[in-house]
Amino acid sequence: MKTGILQFKPIFGKVKENIKNIENLARGKEFDLLVLPELASSGYLFASIDELEELSEFPEDGLFCNALRKISEKKNAYIVSGFPEKADEGGKTRFYNSSILISPDGRYYIYRKIHLFYEEKLWFSPGNIPLEVHRISGRGYEDVGIGMMICFDWFFPETARALALRGAQIICHSSNLVMPYCQSAMSVRALENQVFTVTSNRTGREICGGKEMEFTGGSVILNPNGDYLFRASRDKDELAVIEIDPALALNKNLNSRNNIFKDRRSEFYEK
Amino acid sequence: MKTGILQFKPIFGKVKENIKNIENLARGKEFDLLVLPELASSGYLFASIDELEELSEFPEDGLFCNALRKISEKKNAYIVSGFPEKADEGGKTRFYNSSILISPDGRYYIYRKIHLFYEEKLWFSPGNIPLEVHRISGRGYEDVGIGMMICFDWFFPETARALALRGAQIICHSSNLVMPYCQSAMSVRALENQVFTVTSNRTGREICGGKEMEFTGGSVILNPNGDYLFRASRDKDELAVIEIDPALALNKNLNSRNNIFKDRRSEFYEK
Repeated sequence: MKTGILQFKPIFGKVKENIKNIENLARGKEFDLLVLPELASSGYLFASIDELEELSEFPEDGLFCNALRKISEKKNAYIVSGFPEKADEGGKTRFYNSSILISPDGRYYIYRKIHLFYEEKLWFSPGNIPLEVHRISGRGYEDVGIGMMICFDWFFPETARALALRGAQIICHSSNLVMPYCQSAMSVRALENQVFTVTSNRTGREICGGKEMEFTGGSVILNPNGDYLFRASRDKDELAVIEIDPALALNKNLNSRNNIFKDRRSEFYEK
Repeated sequence: MKTGILQFKPIFGKVKENIKNIENLARGKEFDLLVLPELASSGYLFASIDELEELSEFPEDGLFCNALRKISEKKNAYIVSGFPEKADEGGKTRFYNSSILISPDGRYYIYRKIHLFYEEKLWFSPGNIPLEVHRISGRGYEDVGIGMMICFDWFFPETARALALRGAQIICHSSNLVMPYCQSAMSVRALENQVFTVTSNRTGREICGGKEMEFTGGSVILNPNGDYLFRASRDKDELAVIEIDPALALNKNLNSRNNIFKDRRSEFYEK
């Protein structure tokens, strides 16, 4: 299964330009599953709710999601990407830091970030949808469990764990990382759950009202042994695709006597 | 708080010799808390239940536990060590891969490994005591939360998580590591829980009935940022002590808006 990351630098507020960049990077490339960064349509540092309102979209017909649908259909591939989601909930408009999984047949699934980082709490509502696993099939792969999590979700081992226990074989991890830990910590997330992880991170920096954030690139793909299959550069636009066998993530045996799921002693754990 | 590891090579079956080695390594050293490896009294590769029966002991009056009591009293220090525990349960003798926390005033607490590794399942009963945190005080430190876990327990993020949520500031991790992952993964366990971790690993190899195991030494102490405060050699006997401030592990704030405990969304997690 050809699994890839698209690492790039979203230009803040320039949705059309970001779509163009994504289309250019995807041109001529073949993949079955492609993961883009968090908030790939909009950029990260919002200055006001009005700005977020303008840049967010409804997943069913938003500009960015529709552009990804076209790529998905054309490539006959699944695409995961972060974007600022607008939602009408009981007459009230809410915003979520979401990711979308788009199927080439037009279906789509939404995940809303449950662990908001820092000033995201000013703009976004915390995710209110269970961590779900979606089964996907395509050329040469069938019924593969896909989980989504977003950036800071990695810090909480419970996120990847819940996805793995619910059948995720590949965790698609759209990110805008600023802390220095995640790219090396993902090795533990992959290993402890015996899953593939695909962390697609953005590059570049954003400055807004005296605030500055530098994003660390270095997108990584890991196998269920916690081995790095791919590491991106710190600062370059890249679309990289590697071949993985997602069936490897179905095997939770570490040896002939230890199965990491059957060995769990949940009666002793905290929820 | 002077916190240390004692890394050495237990000689299989030679409890008295192992005690002597521990006493020699501790001589002239000052510490408040010292962590020894898993099964430090006996060695690891049992060939039969008879052998385990002979080498295991009741914590209240066993040879090894009593020897540690003497060191604890003399040094006015807490000691954590792994040992094979014998227990009478309803007239039936059971064996646990346990660790003991010994207080200089004679009190002690037992933890029984809940995640048994590989052929340990042939010899030991799985731990049947909740993951508990014990509060300790001494010269210059007060009411510090101590958690115990043993070797392969690290692989399950729920172990350290439960201890941290229950107030552990220092996780004492007695180990006989053979896989290559733990020493680097402990950085994530410390970071994700914002706790100190003290992994005391044994060295050397054991051969028994065609089986051979090589233990990887390299004991590590980490701070709540996941930084290495100490790394031992791969193969040498060492007693190393470093000064830590356990109060740092009380602070679960990553920044002014993220507290890693308050930010947990347990309604979305799996137990």
